[in-house]
Amino acid sequence: MAGEGMFLYWGSGSAPCWRPMIVLEEKGIKGYGSKMISFSNKEHKGEEVMKLNPRGQVPTFRDGDVVVNESNAICDYLEFKYGEQGTRLLPTDPAKRALVLQRMHEVQNLHKALIEQIVYYIWRTKPEDINQETLATKKKEAREELERWEAYLKEQGDGSFVAGKEFSMADVYLFPTLAFAVRGKLDMSKTPALAAWYATMEKRQSVQATWPPHWKEGPGQDLFVGV
Amino acid sequence: MAGEGMFLYWGSGSAPCWRPMIVLEEKGIKGYGSKMISFSNKEHKGEEVMKLNPRGQVPTFRDGDVVVNESNAICDYLEFKYGEQGTRLLPTDPAKRALVLQRMHEVQNLHKALIEQIVYYIWRTKPEDINQETLATKKKEAREELERWEAYLKEQGDGSFVAGKEFSMADVYLFPTLAFAVRGKLDMSKTPALAAWYATMEKRQSVQATWPPHWKEGPGQDLFVGV
Repeated sequence: MAGEGMFLYWGSGSAPCWRPMIVLEEKGIKGYGSKMISFSNKEHKGEEVMKLNPRGQVPTFRDGDVVVNESNAICDYLEFKYGEQGTRLLPTDPAKRALVLQRMHEVQNLHKALIEQIVYYIWRTKPEDINQETLATKKKEAREELERWEAYLKEQGDGSFVAGKEFSMADVYLFPTLAFAVRGKLDMSKTPALAAWYATMEKRQSVQATWPPHWKEGPGQDLFVGV
Repeated sequence: MAGEGMFLYWGSGSAPCWRPMIVLEEKGIKGYGSKMISFSNKEHKGEEVMKLNPRGQVPTFRDGDVVVNESNAICDYLEFKYGEQGTRLLPTDPAKRALVLQRMHEVQNLHKALIEQIVYYIWRTKPEDINQETLATKKKEAREELERWEAYLKEQGDGSFVAGKEFSMADVYLFPTLAFAVRGKLDMSKTPALAAWYATMEKRQSVQATWPPHWKEGPGQDLFVGV
């Protein structure tokens, strides 16, 4: 299906942007308009984005006259409107759907532990003001979160996805956050089931097609060493 | 419909708990089992909750064998499983649904501005360490958020709900956060459309039936004076 009339503003490497981009691929929506905005040039606060999204955030998404900007809302909207098309991301069986919903929204806990607690702390604190004890506690909490996801995957069995045998919205939600951590030198050998899942996901067409451009240019910062 | 086999652990006044409770009422699900946990006695970290929700958080919800604990996931699950029953909370028209999805997930911005930025700052900082300039900035940001919601309601017209003429999941999401602020002495006279919406919502059966018990015992802290 052609994504005519659709337009997405997005930022390279942003998990809230990457999720709907993977959904668009999985639903087989091709050729939609898009523009990568530069955070460093503050393009998300520019007129073009602001007129659709007065908060000046990305993702900012338009489908014809319909404007949807919250990442969760875009993913839900696309799955609802194009449910029959491409990959089914939210199962129609209520019990299976419950597990997918639970895991996809649970990702916010991992995202918080890795990104808000560790990355923002490091980025927003002067190097000399970083409290190593505080950082060590945050890293310990992130490790506990990672172990939960390792346990979920083990419970599902070899070759499974996060919420069952089928790929789902839960995988879409988890991947961008974990990929950020892997790029930031997270030691994946401590969580072999998660590492195997990651290796499968990394090769998936929808993920490859939407890989953050600036990540191809070189390695990331060592943010997660010691987690 | 009887909510046999359903059980909810919840905390009084918690927005993530109150939302699914309103959904249960709106879907006409009666007589489900429930237990109010005491945060001060750390009952959310007790065995009963932890065996269903290893994170030790509420809401914790069970529908037969299905366990769903994330607030977003419970609301989506109930609306999907009981969509035809009681109040339709997510419209089936894609454009209308898009607006509801957008507004419901946008509530997190208001929640962050009011609760995470102001309440947690006040609660987690020693009174003598509170920086009045920092607090004033946070209050200004919260006011900007409130003005957005005022504008949304004005745009919808008199007597409307947050995402149109019909009550929806967006109203379910917004109410508990705003009610917390009203209890904390937020000046609602600055946002007349929001005040009118609040007055309608406050009287709604689903809201009355789920009103936080401890709120009936006395007034809240003056957290939002000056916002």
